[in-house]
Amino acid sequence: MTERLTITRRATFAAAHRLYRSEWSDEQNFQIFGPCANPGGHGHNYVLEVTVGGSLDPDTGMIADLKWLKQIMERHVIDLVDHRNLNTDVEFLRELNPTAENLACAFWRRLVGAVAEKAQLVRVVVIETENNRATVEEI
Amino acid sequence: MTERLTITRRATFAAAHRLYRSEWSDEQNFQIFGPCANPGGHGHNYVLEVTVGGSLDPDTGMIADLKWLKQIMERHVIDLVDHRNLNTDVEFLRELNPTAENLACAFWRRLVGAVAEKAQLVRVVVIETENNRATVEEI
Amino acid sequence: MTERLTITRRATFAAAHRLYRSEWSDEQNFQIFGPCANPGGHGHNYVLEVTVGGSLDPDTGMIADLKWLKQIMERHVIDLVDHRNLNTDVEFLRELNPTAENLACAFWRRLVGAVAEKAQLVRVVVIETENNRATVEEI
Amino acid sequence: MTERLTITRRATFAAAHRLYRSEWSDEQNFQIFGPCANPGGHGHNYVLEVTVGGSLDPDTGMIADLKWLKQIMERHVIDLVDHRNLNTDVEFLRELNPTAENLACAFWRRLVGAVAEKAQLVRVVVIETENNRATVEEI
Amino acid sequence: MTERLTITRRATFAAAHRLYRSEWSDEQNFQIFGPCANPGGHGHNYVLEVTVGGSLDPDTGMIADLKWLKQIMERHVIDLVDHRNLNTDVEFLRELNPTAENLACAFWRRLVGAVAEKAQLVRVVVIETENNRATVEEI
Amino acid sequence: MTERLTITRRATFAAAHRLYRSEWSDEQNFQIFGPCANPGGHGHNYVLEVTVGGSLDPDTGMIADLKWLKQIMERHVIDLVDHRNLNTDVEFLRELNPTAENLACAFWRRLVGAVAEKAQLVRVVVIETENNRATVEEI
Repeated sequence: MTERLTITRRATFAAAHRLYRSEWSDEQNFQIFGPCANPGGHGHNYVLEVTVGGSLDPDTGMIADLKWLKQIMERHVIDLVDHRNLNTDVEFLRELNPTAENLACAFWRRLVGAVAEKAQLVRVVVIETENNRATVEEI
Repeated sequence: MTERLTITRRATFAAAHRLYRSEWSDEQNFQIFGPCANPGGHGHNYVLEVTVGGSLDPDTGMIADLKWLKQIMERHVIDLVDHRNLNTDVEFLRELNPTAENLACAFWRRLVGAVAEKAQLVRVVVIETENNRATVEEI
Repeated sequence: MTERLTITRRATFAAAHRLYRSEWSDEQNFQIFGPCANPGGHGHNYVLEVTVGGSLDPDTGMIADLKWLKQIMERHVIDLVDHRNLNTDVEFLRELNPTAENLACAFWRRLVGAVAEKAQLVRVVVIETENNRATVEEI
Repeated sequence: MTERLTITRRATFAAAHRLYRSEWSDEQNFQIFGPCANPGGHGHNYVLEVTVGGSLDPDTGMIADLKWLKQIMERHVIDLVDHRNLNTDVEFLRELNPTAENLACAFWRRLVGAVAEKAQLVRVVVIETENNRATVEEI
Repeated sequence: MTERLTITRRATFAAAHRLYRSEWSDEQNFQIFGPCANPGGHGHNYVLEVTVGGSLDPDTGMIADLKWLKQIMERHVIDLVDHRNLNTDVEFLRELNPTAENLACAFWRRLVGAVAEKAQLVRVVVIETENNRATVEEI
Repeated sequence: MTERLTITRRATFAAAHRLYRSEWSDEQNFQIFGPCANPGGHGHNYVLEVTVGGSLDPDTGMIADLKWLKQIMERHVIDLVDHRNLNTDVEFLRELNPTAENLACAFWRRLVGAVAEKAQLVRVVVIETENNRATVEEI
């Protein structure tokens, strides 16, 4: 057994989305996605939590500067999705149905390289509502 | 001075919205509403809190049944706005820019008569994000 | 218009309760109180918030010591209801159906005199669940 | 190292319980369980969080429908414990002292098979109060 | 009775403080302020909630722009107290023992004029911990 | 794969701290630590969450008594840091820059032996603000 040290940073964004597949009929979309398939869309106050691990820098007492992690999250995710429509406005989500699972995986892919300079990505959590969330994590 | 007894019920809904005036240019809309004017819209997990007052029924120990208040809120507000686009999908919001203030006032107008049968509407709060909310209340 | 200064203290207690009237049939109790009438009872993590007003003591910069308010709340309410059955174990609730409204009123009656030595009781809130609460307040 | 994708669903229930062993004297019960052994019982607003893993369905962008997970949780746990006395009213808890640990293990046993059709149970968390929780999880 | 419309904005700041009076002996300070009088000080994640009222601008659907209110709060309060020692670093608190009550009153005095251009200050809440807060409000 | 059962206990403390290295110039300290290096310090409402694992005692239905875990946390951590200055008042933090990471590691070292009598330490989380936390855990 080993002890792992990580830090976690939380950020929020507000976005619209709609769950549906263009290949499917309206009926099929409503059957699978329910009211999430409404053509006008709906939205959420999303919470993004990013956890990174690494060794403790003895000079600073930090794995990595939380301001640095905040900026990585803003530049690679938050600034691109906040106050946007996730179906139409976000280049890196174009091919995806914007479920919490797909968002978590897409954010992981954008962040894993961006944090690698100073730390290792350990967990990405996308909280969609107080009752639902999706998590990608190293195990 | 008098003591007032009230009960408060909380409900949530997820909706998309966009702040803008069709009479204004894009430039003017962005100047006033910032990223809230993005054409694709964005969205929120809204919280609606409704407070009603009334006299205590000595038989039940209640002002009014909380299930009754829950149903009023669902029938008159939640069921019409949840998983909807507030700009395009909601009849009673058609004429309004869906700011938190306008939502709170519109919900008040729908609820004030609906609860009057058993109680008096005292306060309507619309929580848009963890940092913003609008309140209409009797004073 | 005047400005009023108040302080608010929050405390929690865990209690069991059941809503029913012994004068009513089981059928009538279930019709009015629903599953809250189940004979075995259920329970809540209650939150009690007490707000008191008063003038600012220029020596201390306080209306009243928050430790003092905490002790008043513990002695007069929390210690008597925490880890208790509100229907059977609490002398001052004996005559009452333990709805949130009745609890708020009963706690108000116990606290209004107890705090009067140093401050004026302004508001008592009993939060039963994340969706329900009852409030007694001066208006 | 591998990346694991999971979704988590939260639900709440209100229940009464009492911690004690019928084989023990009152004195011994109070010594071990403190005020949790009060004969009248007490109660909590419990939170149940269930996490399941699985592969991402490329058609839907989901591991599994959150409505499906919600229904599994309701049918196998929530509907049986909500507004109940956990010591006397719940068949599948009959043999157990209803500690948070025992609840988490009992809920795991009920859920592990029920979710297996579409996903793999990864974690069950039972939150008893804002300060206490028990977790069963795959490691 | 009239209906009042208000908007509320929340902001946070982290600060150190110590409760004591230089005119008093250490013994007297500890007797009145308890561990809050420790010479090294302690600190909090403070939350500031500011509520303003006004008439609804029919063009925008707003009382006042929330970004404007956010900037007022930052310029007149947050930027001056965040990551500061409230006893030694903040000019406008110099004469005051930094209790929650004194902070709420001092913030009210700074904000009441600053918001007057577009709205009327209705309530200032200073949340010191999850259990304690002070409120100044118009009644 | 195995299932692991754990219990988690949450406690809070309010403390002042300042991030800086005495070996560095003021300029270097501000460059690395930003406003956290302000000489007067600042502070937080810290949350400490401690998770321990172990086998379920069939007599009690517990891994270990939560009151016992609470007392361990108070004696070994909370009582020493609550209402203190983490730079100057806490013996076991003397050599450390009080970052969230260093606090989590230092608390782990104090707790790992203290809980070993009845359980195994699994995770220590130090929550500094609603946006930042550090975690030490067995993996």
